[in-house]
Amino acid sequence: MPNQYRDSSLKIFSLSSNRALAQEIASEIGLELGKCTVNRFSDGEIQINIEESIRGCDVYVVQSTNEPVNDHIMELLIMIDALKRASARTVNLVMPYYGYARQDRKARAREPITAKLVANLIETAGATRMINLDLHAPQIQGFFDIPNDHLMGVPILGDYFKEKGLYKDDIVIVSPDHGGVTRARRLADRLKAPIAIIDKRRPRPNVAEVMNIVGNVEGKTAILIDDIIDTAGTITLAAKAIAENGAKEVYACCTHPVLSGPAIERIQNSNIKELVVTNSIVLPEEKKIDKIKELSVAPLLGEAIIRVHENQSVSKLFD
Amino acid sequence: MPNQYRDSSLKIFSLSSNRALAQEIASEIGLELGKCTVNRFSDGEIQINIEESIRGCDVYVVQSTNEPVNDHIMELLIMIDALKRASARTVNLVMPYYGYARQDRKARAREPITAKLVANLIETAGATRMINLDLHAPQIQGFFDIPNDHLMGVPILGDYFKEKGLYKDDIVIVSPDHGGVTRARRLADRLKAPIAIIDKRRPRPNVAEVMNIVGNVEGKTAILIDDIIDTAGTITLAAKAIAENGAKEVYACCTHPVLSGPAIERIQNSNIKELVVTNSIVLPEEKKIDKIKELSVAPLLGEAIIRVHENQSVSKLFD
Ligand SMILES: Nc1ncnc2c1ncn2[C@@H]1O[C@H](COP(=O)(O)O)[C@@H](O)[C@H]1O
Ligand SMILES: Nc1ncnc2c1ncn2[C@@H]1O[C@H](COP(=O)(O)O)[C@@H](O)[C@H]1O
Repeated sequence: MPNQYRDSSLKIFSLSSNRALAQEIASEIGLELGKCTVNRFSDGEIQINIEESIRGCDVYVVQSTNEPVNDHIMELLIMIDALKRASARTVNLVMPYYGYARQDRKARAREPITAKLVANLIETAGATRMINLDLHAPQIQGFFDIPNDHLMGVPILGDYFKEKGLYKDDIVIVSPDHGGVTRARRLADRLKAPIAIIDKRRPRPNVAEVMNIVGNVEGKTAILIDDIIDTAGTITLAAKAIAENGAKEVYACCTHPVLSGPAIERIQNSNIKELVVTNSIVLPEEKKIDKIKELSVAPLLGEAIIRVHENQSVSKLFD
Repeated sequence: MPNQYRDSSLKIFSLSSNRALAQEIASEIGLELGKCTVNRFSDGEIQINIEESIRGCDVYVVQSTNEPVNDHIMELLIMIDALKRASARTVNLVMPYYGYARQDRKARAREPITAKLVANLIETAGATRMINLDLHAPQIQGFFDIPNDHLMGVPILGDYFKEKGLYKDDIVIVSPDHGGVTRARRLADRLKAPIAIIDKRRPRPNVAEVMNIVGNVEGKTAILIDDIIDTAGTITLAAKAIAENGAKEVYACCTHPVLSGPAIERIQNSNIKELVVTNSIVLPEEKKIDKIKELSVAPLLGEAIIRVHENQSVSKLFD
């Protein structure tokens, strides 16, 4: 990639969720980050100052909406408003992690569909394009009327396991639930491996779930894959079930390390040998344990930004 | 007011910013609050459960967007989304305090206009009407396309000073800045008093401001009035200047006690004899000092809700 990107109409700004990633993306492209400060007034209201002209520019704003999710969303919306009023030509969001994605349907009566609400808020604020990474459900793309480029973490995760030489073992890719089978299939294709599925069932109400495994894990190196690992309950129980079914060892990977509440303790105490994640969400120091390996999505996002800016197809990035 | 409001299509819900006020409003009207819980998932995302049918109902949601402002705004937007999807007939917001109201214009280049952004977000979420109290600038009403009823705290504040018997003294109503003169005039009319204005000027750059007083305060009981008291810098300096100009004693009042940062300490250490505020924003225990007197806006808001619901004019409430 060029060391100094030529087109001065391209500007990258970072908000406060993931400055390290934004900086890395800008370096990949060969740009300095745009100058902008995000402060708080005494009463906690967000104050944003864009400190350079962006008139007529194509602006890319890097922000994941992980915890504190409401602050990160409002910060993003206020930034979009400021950019729009400052006459940016286009306002493009680079949202590696899309908060509230799991609230994507009415599972019960009178529930909100917050993932759709957030999409509407972003469009109302004035964003003209989105770049996302592993949305919890691909249907969320349809919540937007603006163009949306959807990237995937599977190639990055897969390449790591390849380089590790794991593919030489007898491996199996495991989806921790039915919803993740497509993702597991994709990783399995890259690693030329079979898949297995954890088939949770509750035989009767108020009776513990049974972890049944569809597929063969015996004697194999299993790699669990999910999009989000939040409290790590599902993934650690799945790892246990896989071991009990005779797997030799268990790895796990995900794109978005939300890792809230008891997650780190559960992973630490689990039989998971290594958990591989991306930097779509910052891992604060207290969550950096030896078992967790962090891979960067900056090269992928940097390439996607250049391709979008230059009107080239981004689908090539999925290969 | 009736003890048991007859029309079952009217429902009042409280969110988390000001449950005491919402409860008081519901009691004024003669209703129970609607059943609804607001929780957090492990990762901090808001989860709202509306626990009773509101199909075809006119729903009023009570929420001030004071600190933590971003959480209170997102909570409100998610609630609106849930109500709309649950087939409420109308979604009416009762927002005694409207956060981000001071970001209502581009004071500098490339600033956001967050007060307008928030208006757009509220409309996008699906609100059909707003009831507000002392918006920082009346122009914010024009940020909304939905109908908006704008109430004022002046009658409540004025009646308190009347009942206190202060009107018998030789009083003067003081605006702490040029922006607040209309409000001061309104209070002065109710108390049949003259007004004065603090006329801050900076003679040269980097030289302290001079507090000049336009009008006569000598020997009088002064009542300072503002819409918001935030860090209390303006109001305590104004009180000092008034005393230095010979006022007998100084009272202060405002509708919205934001009271952030050093506010309480400043008020405690000031020559303000009493600060009169409303419960548009909750005063947490640590801010409840003897000098601060809290008045309730629940009767006013309750009456406004009934009038709006029954298609009666609310302008009578301003008299
Ligand atoms: N932040 C969250 N943490 C945990 N559960 C959530 C969260 N947001 C939504 N949910 C619930 O997760 C379910 C969707 O998850 P899934 O079945 O994995 O798509 C919904 O029924 C939601 O109620
Ligand atoms: N939450 C806040 N706290 C302090 N100042 C603010 C806040 N929001 C906006 N401002 C600033 O206050 C000014 C408007 O206040 P005013 O002149 O009283 O209408 C603007 O220039 C804003 O930059």
